[in-house]
Parts: sequence; C-alpha cells; structure tokens
Amino acid sequence: MRVIGIDPGLRQTGWGVVEAEGQRLAAVAHGVCRSGEGALAVRLARLYNALETVFAAHEPDAAAVEQTFVNRDAAGTLKLGQARAVALLVPARAGISVAEYAPNAVKKAVVGVGHADKDQVAHMVKMLLPGVVPATPDAADALAIAICHAWTAGAAGRRAAAVR
Amino acid sequence: MRVIGIDPGLRQTGWGVVEAEGQRLAAVAHGVCRSGEGALAVRLARLYNALETVFAAHEPDAAAVEQTFVNRDAAGTLKLGQARAVALLVPARAGISVAEYAPNAVKKAVVGVGHADKDQVAHMVKMLLPGVVPATPDAADALAIAICHAWTAGAAGRRAAAVR
Repeated sequence: MRVIGIDPGLRQTGWGVVEAEGQRLAAVAHGVCRSGEGALAVRLARLYNALETVFAAHEPDAAAVEQTFVNRDAAGTLKLGQARAVALLVPARAGISVAEYAPNAVKKAVVGVGHADKDQVAHMVKMLLPGVVPATPDAADALAIAICHAWTAGAAGRRAAAVR
Repeated sequence: MRVIGIDPGLRQTGWGVVEAEGQRLAAVAHGVCRSGEGALAVRLARLYNALETVFAAHEPDAAAVEQTFVNRDAAGTLKLGQARAVALLVPARAGISVAEYAPNAVKKAVVGVGHADKDQVAHMVKMLLPGVVPATPDAADALAIAICHAWTAGAAGRRAAAVR
C-alpha cells in the first residue's frame, strides 16, 4: 500500500509518501507545496494544483491528514481550515479515501507516546525511513502521518484477514 | 457582465448569478449546494462538484465571496474555512477572478447602510431583482454579494472609461 500523509498549512503544506508492505516501510518521496503570494483564491488554487501534481507523480492508494487542533486565534483557524480543505479535496476528488488522525494518535503510532514533541517525531521518522532527511518539519510531520496510517490500516487489514 | 455571488457554508453554500448591464440588473439563477452526509473530505468534494456544475451551467465572468467574520467558536470557524476554500477554489481554478467583500460592504451596497439586518437585505434583493424569490437566506445573501460586486466592478469600469 502506498500512503500519502499531508500536513496542511496555507503558506506551505507538507507531504510525504511511503510504501508499506506489512510492517515494512520505505520512503517514496516527500516535500512541501507552497502557495506563494497573491490573492487568497489564487494561493489556494496554487496549493491545489501543486498537491494534484504530487498525486499524479506518486499515485498513492490512500491519504491521511492530521486532525486540526483549533486552539489558535480565529484568523489562523480560518486560514488553516482553507488549507485543510485543499488537503482533503485533492484525494477525495481523485476517489482516494482520506483518513484523519488526531495529532496524539500520530505521535503514539510513530514515537510510542502521545505527548512526544516535534523533534522526537522527526527523529523517529528518520529511524523508520533510513536515508530520509525531511526537508522541513512540515514534511517530517507529513511522513509521520503517512506512517501512522500505513500501520493503522495495515493492522486493520491483518485483523480482518485473521478473522476470515 | 455576469456575476456569481457565493455565500459559503459547510452544510449548504448559497449561490446567486446576476447579469449586469451598467446599473441594470437581471437575475439569472440562484440556489444552494448541499454537502450531504459522510466524511468531511467526501462532503467537501460534493460541495466542490456541485458548485462546479453551477459554474458550467451559468458561465459567470466574475465571482464574489463574502469575507468571513470569525466571531464564532473555533470548530465553526474551521468548518467555515473549509467551505470557504471550495467557494474560492472553484472560480480560481477556472481562471475566473474572485472578489472578496466585507459583510458591511455588501449591506451598504444593497441596502444603503452597513448595519442592515438579514431581512432588509432579502427585501432589497427582491426589489432589485423583480420576480425573484430566493429559496433560502443563503441564496438571498449570495445574490446580494453578486449585486454588490456587479455595481462595484461596474462603477470602477465607468470611472476608468471616464478617465480615458
């Protein structure tokens, strides 16, 4: 299964693609889509097109996006909501299922504890995907989300197979 | 000039299309796009497809969306941001410019005062577009946004023509 993890942000949206075979993981690619300057609508469209290009290039089977904590200021929450819509729309419109995970669930899956900090997550991502040096923290987070989904969906599949 | 006004909401997004020739206005069509039930990504994709169908059917030259007041709860703001992204993305990805107006600017343009209430806006929309009975308050708001943009953009064009 090939999974893309997406860490949405209006300025930049991180993404990371991993290939999972059972428990085994391999990094495929990762990076950041930037919205650049200009009117909000134009920036969102740029983000959409950039993410669509990533999907076309790496053809993921499944997508995962972090659930959002809305503890920031209202203007920031609104911006994040708009970027998040792009992260949900691109896979959904391509017919690819999108899973959502709470930040704590991602940390628990990757680091083993739900209260891990960003550095611990980035460290574990490098351990789990040898040779990968995430370009930015957003890309590291996106890879963590992809790993979380690959393992969660994989475990669900194995349970289903065991029951059959 | 044919203008579409959009009043974004995750549950339902109102839209209204008007044809403007100088100060004269004619209603073309209006309605509501609904996201229905299901996962958030699926609902956003449904909203996107519905709005895209509206654009294909009525071929607006310009779009206008109300700027959002972020005085609600954080969860509501996030939902609104996600719906708003759809309202901005559909025109932007079709190469149609999207204007944004503060709610007070829309009320001032349509009713004459910035602090008008929803009923006054709906009343003036019916006066300005004879024969139109907006299906829902969202559709009435969307028509008001379209009228605001038609007049604002029209006035800017006349000023530019007068200066030339």
